[in-house]
Amino acid sequence: MNYIEKYIEENKDRFLEELFGLIRIPSISSVSAHKPDMYKAAEYWKELLLKAGADKAEIFETDGNPVTYGEKMIDPAKPTVLVYSHMDVMPVEPLELWKSAPFEPEIRDGKIWARGADDDKGQGMMHAKAFEMMVNTHTLPCNVKFMIEGEEEIGSPNLGKWCEQHKEMLKADVILVSDTTMIRPDLPTITTGLRGLAYWQVEVTGPNRDLHSGLFGGAVANPINVLSKMIAGMIDDNGRITIPGFYDDVLEASAEERALLAEAPFDPETYKKAIDVEELAGEEGFSTTERTGIRPSFDVCGIWGGYTGEGAKTVLPSKAFAKISTRLVPNQNHEKIAVLFKEHFESIAPKSVKVEVKSLHGGQAYVCPIDLPAYQAAEKAYVDVFGRRPVPFRSGGSIPIISTFEQILGIKSILMGFGLESDAIHSPNENFPLEQFYKGIQTIPLFYKYFAEMSEV
Amino acid sequence: MNYIEKYIEENKDRFLEELFGLIRIPSISSVSAHKPDMYKAAEYWKELLLKAGADKAEIFETDGNPVTYGEKMIDPAKPTVLVYSHMDVMPVEPLELWKSAPFEPEIRDGKIWARGADDDKGQGMMHAKAFEMMVNTHTLPCNVKFMIEGEEEIGSPNLGKWCEQHKEMLKADVILVSDTTMIRPDLPTITTGLRGLAYWQVEVTGPNRDLHSGLFGGAVANPINVLSKMIAGMIDDNGRITIPGFYDDVLEASAEERALLAEAPFDPETYKKAIDVEELAGEEGFSTTERTGIRPSFDVCGIWGGYTGEGAKTVLPSKAFAKISTRLVPNQNHEKIAVLFKEHFESIAPKSVKVEVKSLHGGQAYVCPIDLPAYQAAEKAYVDVFGRRPVPFRSGGSIPIISTFEQILGIKSILMGFGLESDAIHSPNENFPLEQFYKGIQTIPLFYKYFAEMSEV
Repeated sequence: MNYIEKYIEENKDRFLEELFGLIRIPSISSVSAHKPDMYKAAEYWKELLLKAGADKAEIFETDGNPVTYGEKMIDPAKPTVLVYSHMDVMPVEPLELWKSAPFEPEIRDGKIWARGADDDKGQGMMHAKAFEMMVNTHTLPCNVKFMIEGEEEIGSPNLGKWCEQHKEMLKADVILVSDTTMIRPDLPTITTGLRGLAYWQVEVTGPNRDLHSGLFGGAVANPINVLSKMIAGMIDDNGRITIPGFYDDVLEASAEERALLAEAPFDPETYKKAIDVEELAGEEGFSTTERTGIRPSFDVCGIWGGYTGEGAKTVLPSKAFAKISTRLVPNQNHEKIAVLFKEHFESIAPKSVKVEVKSLHGGQAYVCPIDLPAYQAAEKAYVDVFGRRPVPFRSGGSIPIISTFEQILGIKSILMGFGLESDAIHSPNENFPLEQFYKGIQTIPLFYKYFAEMSEV
Repeated sequence: MNYIEKYIEENKDRFLEELFGLIRIPSISSVSAHKPDMYKAAEYWKELLLKAGADKAEIFETDGNPVTYGEKMIDPAKPTVLVYSHMDVMPVEPLELWKSAPFEPEIRDGKIWARGADDDKGQGMMHAKAFEMMVNTHTLPCNVKFMIEGEEEIGSPNLGKWCEQHKEMLKADVILVSDTTMIRPDLPTITTGLRGLAYWQVEVTGPNRDLHSGLFGGAVANPINVLSKMIAGMIDDNGRITIPGFYDDVLEASAEERALLAEAPFDPETYKKAIDVEELAGEEGFSTTERTGIRPSFDVCGIWGGYTGEGAKTVLPSKAFAKISTRLVPNQNHEKIAVLFKEHFESIAPKSVKVEVKSLHGGQAYVCPIDLPAYQAAEKAYVDVFGRRPVPFRSGGSIPIISTFEQILGIKSILMGFGLESDAIHSPNENFPLEQFYKGIQTIPLFYKYFAEMSEV
């Protein structure tokens, strides 16, 4: 047992307790009623960093939720690692599907069950504890900075501006992030690509009030009928998005790239079984891995309108709403896509309704080259702990702020994720295996070690 | 001032108080939590009938909500009028659109504002008070029976069976109903046609849990995208319903009938302005009056799925739901249509989702011939009070029980409605003009008078 494993073994229960304390704060960033919880979470992180050995830690205000920043500078000649994580979590609805309360963490079957257990309180906590270990064992080889934000799940609308304002303070050689997944528990994965995102809320208004569906039905446009048709028209029979110009900037993957992607292990039967669907669906001519990795997608995340209660109310409703998102790939500009969607959605609306399109958030896609020294340091760290080379992976998810960091701070991010697909992030019964949590704490210090060594050369 | 007007004048405030008492009972039949209110309303009606002069009144249990029945038999040789009304009301959502609380009736601008003010507590109360007037002025010319049910707004699922069980008790020469509207306050209207109804709830299931729209988006069918497409496909570009066989039994109106319908006053600009839409929409080749009167329609009454809260949750939801209704015309069988819809909906579902279709309710359409003596008695009553002949009207609405009465009891119904289109029944801010309420009470006794006279001939 090396010094890292020994430290973890001696402190593992306390690590969990500290994580549970953080999880118990219901810091849902998309619901404004939880604003006070964001401050509790920021305060919690501040104390965590100070106790772990930071020289200083501070809560910064932004135009939205606060950011906790902390640092330990050991030597200006040494490389600096900037750790990024987020203290906010997704909403927890539908509550009735949770087997245990989302903000009361429980250990069952070797996993932590709670909202944020993985995304990103669990993965963020690994960095705090790895840092503490390095400080207490006098093995910290780099300067460390922590930037923990409170708006990742709503698209980090204010962190870009905050980074602009604190460029000097945030100077670093690499940004280290654990907010992604591994393909399998025995197959470590470094995410080298992230999809971008554009997200809207649309409102379709028919008559100025709910009408009797008998007296008016058939003569007045029903906004739900209309919205359904507008949504249906957004994807053609080949699974391609019909917004004019949508694919203009998409970089088509080369045959070689696609061959590499096809090497990643993927078993469609296991995949279908895990989510209980009989058939997969998506853009014609692309594999599942490609559909989520290198191709954009169009999903209605929510829809509502009319009577949704018990029984059969016969109504021709006044309004229908939907929350619509597209995932974007490198080279697509989310701001341009936001405009294209709005123009298209408005143009296909019949005159019998009024439509309103609000852009809720967006972010660019990201790519990390695998010849980067930081990438190679991460690779070596994984080899030491997992016994095999990690796979570079293009994820379908979005962390819009990652490309913003590159634009504003000029720093590349390394995405060392320890989550698993079965962790059900953003869903009921989110969980995080204890083994992944502790292996993460074990792997991170090795990244620091190899990164420092490479920087010396 | 005749004896009817005098009686109304002397008792008008008490009439209102009695109506308000009934309105204050929130008897929403589609919400099971309001079950106790149904009994309160039934009790209220029982007392109302007894105080008005009924020989007896009784609350009957059914498999659903109770029925209040009361009668006054003056002479077996005289004709018998069976009054039908309902004590239940529609849900009141969205509550925030009401200018005053739905179950706290208020008088503003010469109108009663409340849920049920028109449909059908206000219109039902007119019959109770007209009956009381005839008893107290010793002018009642017919035997009278009252049948007040508690499930009209959910399609009267149990009244048919109850009628079967009480055929003898319910024997009558005509059924008199006030649950429809007049075209204008100065243009009395007798509804001679009602559309039928078939209503379903559909559930589309994609993955077995909500998924992260980034990690899975583009590779897994999104049930909202799919449901939207399925709904969109239900109506073609000419506004025709695409369910195979749907129109097979529709009786196409003759050129002569359509010419008669076209004589009814209709101003599209006023109509559009009242509901604030720029353009009307519906089946190609038919006028607005035809679209609601003699043609079937397809409306999504409610839709929901995924994240519908504040902000931008990126989720690929597990499920999407819709409440879907069609209005049917004479000769279409709602049970046949229910099967056609279910088969079609299931057949167009892609293999990437599972669908479930539940039939929530249905009813046949109805037609009343204008050469019926009871129709002519109603016509004369209106002429006396409104100074002009009423217009026979094919309504787009459904009162499924009306055709059931004909099937089971073998009695035709006369639909003497005193509501106005601006009464916003089924919507927020339902209202009923005081003038219509009192004119109704004035007109009804004249119907009894003429109906008795005609029956003597």
